[in-house]
Amino acid sequence: MEKERETLQAWKERVGHELDRVMAFWLEHSHDPEHGGFFTCLGRDGRVYDDLKYVWLQGRQVWMYCRLYRKLERFHRPELLDAAKAGGEFLLRSARVAPPAKKCAFVLTRDGRPVKVQRTIFSECFYTMAMNELWRVTGEARYQSEAVEMMDQIVRWVREDPSGLGRPQLPGAVALESMAVPMMLLSLVEQLSEEDEELAGRYARLGDWCAQRILQHVQRDGQAVLENVSENGEELSGCLGRHQNPGHALEAGWFLLRHSTRRGDPKLRAHVIDKFLLLPFRSGWDPDHGGLFYFQDADGLCPTQLEWAMKLWWPHSEAMIAFLMGYSESGDPALLRLFYQVAEYTFHQFRDPEHGEWFGYLNREGKVALTIKGGPFKGCFHVPRCLAMCEEMLSALLSRLA
Amino acid sequence: MEKERETLQAWKERVGHELDRVMAFWLEHSHDPEHGGFFTCLGRDGRVYDDLKYVWLQGRQVWMYCRLYRKLERFHRPELLDAAKAGGEFLLRSARVAPPAKKCAFVLTRDGRPVKVQRTIFSECFYTMAMNELWRVTGEARYQSEAVEMMDQIVRWVREDPSGLGRPQLPGAVALESMAVPMMLLSLVEQLSEEDEELAGRYARLGDWCAQRILQHVQRDGQAVLENVSENGEELSGCLGRHQNPGHALEAGWFLLRHSTRRGDPKLRAHVIDKFLLLPFRSGWDPDHGGLFYFQDADGLCPTQLEWAMKLWWPHSEAMIAFLMGYSESGDPALLRLFYQVAEYTFHQFRDPEHGEWFGYLNREGKVALTIKGGPFKGCFHVPRCLAMCEEMLSALLSRLA
Repeated sequence: MEKERETLQAWKERVGHELDRVMAFWLEHSHDPEHGGFFTCLGRDGRVYDDLKYVWLQGRQVWMYCRLYRKLERFHRPELLDAAKAGGEFLLRSARVAPPAKKCAFVLTRDGRPVKVQRTIFSECFYTMAMNELWRVTGEARYQSEAVEMMDQIVRWVREDPSGLGRPQLPGAVALESMAVPMMLLSLVEQLSEEDEELAGRYARLGDWCAQRILQHVQRDGQAVLENVSENGEELSGCLGRHQNPGHALEAGWFLLRHSTRRGDPKLRAHVIDKFLLLPFRSGWDPDHGGLFYFQDADGLCPTQLEWAMKLWWPHSEAMIAFLMGYSESGDPALLRLFYQVAEYTFHQFRDPEHGEWFGYLNREGKVALTIKGGPFKGCFHVPRCLAMCEEMLSALLSRLA
Repeated sequence: MEKERETLQAWKERVGHELDRVMAFWLEHSHDPEHGGFFTCLGRDGRVYDDLKYVWLQGRQVWMYCRLYRKLERFHRPELLDAAKAGGEFLLRSARVAPPAKKCAFVLTRDGRPVKVQRTIFSECFYTMAMNELWRVTGEARYQSEAVEMMDQIVRWVREDPSGLGRPQLPGAVALESMAVPMMLLSLVEQLSEEDEELAGRYARLGDWCAQRILQHVQRDGQAVLENVSENGEELSGCLGRHQNPGHALEAGWFLLRHSTRRGDPKLRAHVIDKFLLLPFRSGWDPDHGGLFYFQDADGLCPTQLEWAMKLWWPHSEAMIAFLMGYSESGDPALLRLFYQVAEYTFHQFRDPEHGEWFGYLNREGKVALTIKGGPFKGCFHVPRCLAMCEEMLSALLSRLA
């Protein structure tokens, strides 16, 4: 019991300290004082190697700053609030390609001109997350209007009419659902519903729908989580249908754990632990070198993505959250052991003790393959979110033990 | 001299024998007897793991079969002609998304329904290559009509009005030229011009324009070949502007060598050898593990592509052609030595002595990273084209020595 307490305490300090280091990296290197928003293309030592601004990452960083500002006292500092507001204003000014239409760009120039549009909902989703957090920290209603209006547009695209996204309808293209979409939407429901009875009520059914859609990705009689299923919730053929993303399954797992807690549904929780935590970990963890494969094929065939066997930072941050949350919710010590296993690997392989933050991309054997600390897809989000959540969960576990 | 002759002879036999093995693999595993066209998603042992048909690869395989059928006596066999014709008919029936409009799909279902369209010209280009070759082997004028009409559409898209490609014009997107476009067009000019005075005349200026555009990719005072330049032939900023593809530079190199031979321009030839063969090889060849990096950054920064340090099959096949051709044209023995260096590495690392054909994708250290023999981008094209061209060039060199 004392040993257990010591280990939990050690990890609480470790993640807390790492959170400080990681945030220091972004605070030091990423702010654009001229235009607002953030440089995410940062090299090993934090130097900016490209000034393009990726909209998912802008929204995510605003969200992260606001969240830390209001939830952790040591981050309740003006520099985070100011940068978050400047980032929010940058998004308000520039994210939408053709305002008042809601479609946002995928990537913008440093000064906010659209470079590329992706025909998915994710820029808009992270925009929404950012706006809602800005409202929570500033109290300014205009941010919340932005958040709710964008949410409504996203819901229309997903549930009513995706034609506004501009995707062509081709005769050979199968109507599919990628797990990322209900995951993202569930994430938004949770964000907007936090301490907001009205919105929680408004989005309750949507949240249930999202959870049901995610659960449909458990296929083959409960033996595999598949990233893509048909609109009717059935397995698809080909590489597309067999495609697996263990990190995504684990992330979906903790989204669903939160949902099952909100719904007070222990049966769902047990199912989620089984199918979204243990199952993907068993098939996704590399027995030879450790770490989670980025992609897999449900039939054990070779995936066609060149990067399939690489070990990426975010599946590991999500696995840490998932296992610690699973343990917190269920009390099953096996899950705590898995948390330690993943956390040890992750800290050992991804952390950069010299320059701070984490490498994002390792090769199969766990060696650093790209020295960048941020890029088009890696920003100030997964790592701090994981560390902050783990710090909170470890604190709670320690309180329980005391 | 005798040693040199023996080495050339040994390599001629080696590439010829390998060409037979490689073609046997595709002949055995890839034909779709029901719909025509080819399965390119073949696993290590040739088994089909996905029946989607990628249009570039359909066109390329038809082209390859026809070319071997008419140029190499041992491939003048009905099975190649029949499969090429069936593949051609499949393309005629299915490649165009909305006939009579010319736009072709990127990928089709097995039975020919469009799944995805890419807003580039490459499906149409390989369609054109295939149709012209089919005309050459069958004498049927309808194939040539198809080829010339598609060529005209491609030229209009590239030289007059790209709006038909459907790419959005965004304020922050810089007007750029990727080297692949003039390369592909030059390739088409050469294909259509072969033993055709009329078309050679019609496309001569276009060919010169393509060559000039490719040459503009030599930047930084002759110190780097950049994959993307502005429409005015200047370096662009950011990762995009610094992006390098050594294999592409080498491939462009041999395209330009052929062009310089056609134009009888030894000065151009020397420039091409210097800038498109030696320069990219010097910076692109991995000094630690051998092999050509897939991508690089001209400032030596870390590229953002996860697969940048992988060793892919086609840069090596193109390097083999380029060096052997450079040696054939110039007589510089340093180029022959480079051919041997690349060929030894390539045969050793990529060949699969057990199941035939070549692995496509190795990790940085040269170990097989994907066991597939074909996929969305690897088909019956680069390897046989390289082996057939090297066999021909080695024969010619041996004749010269005799």
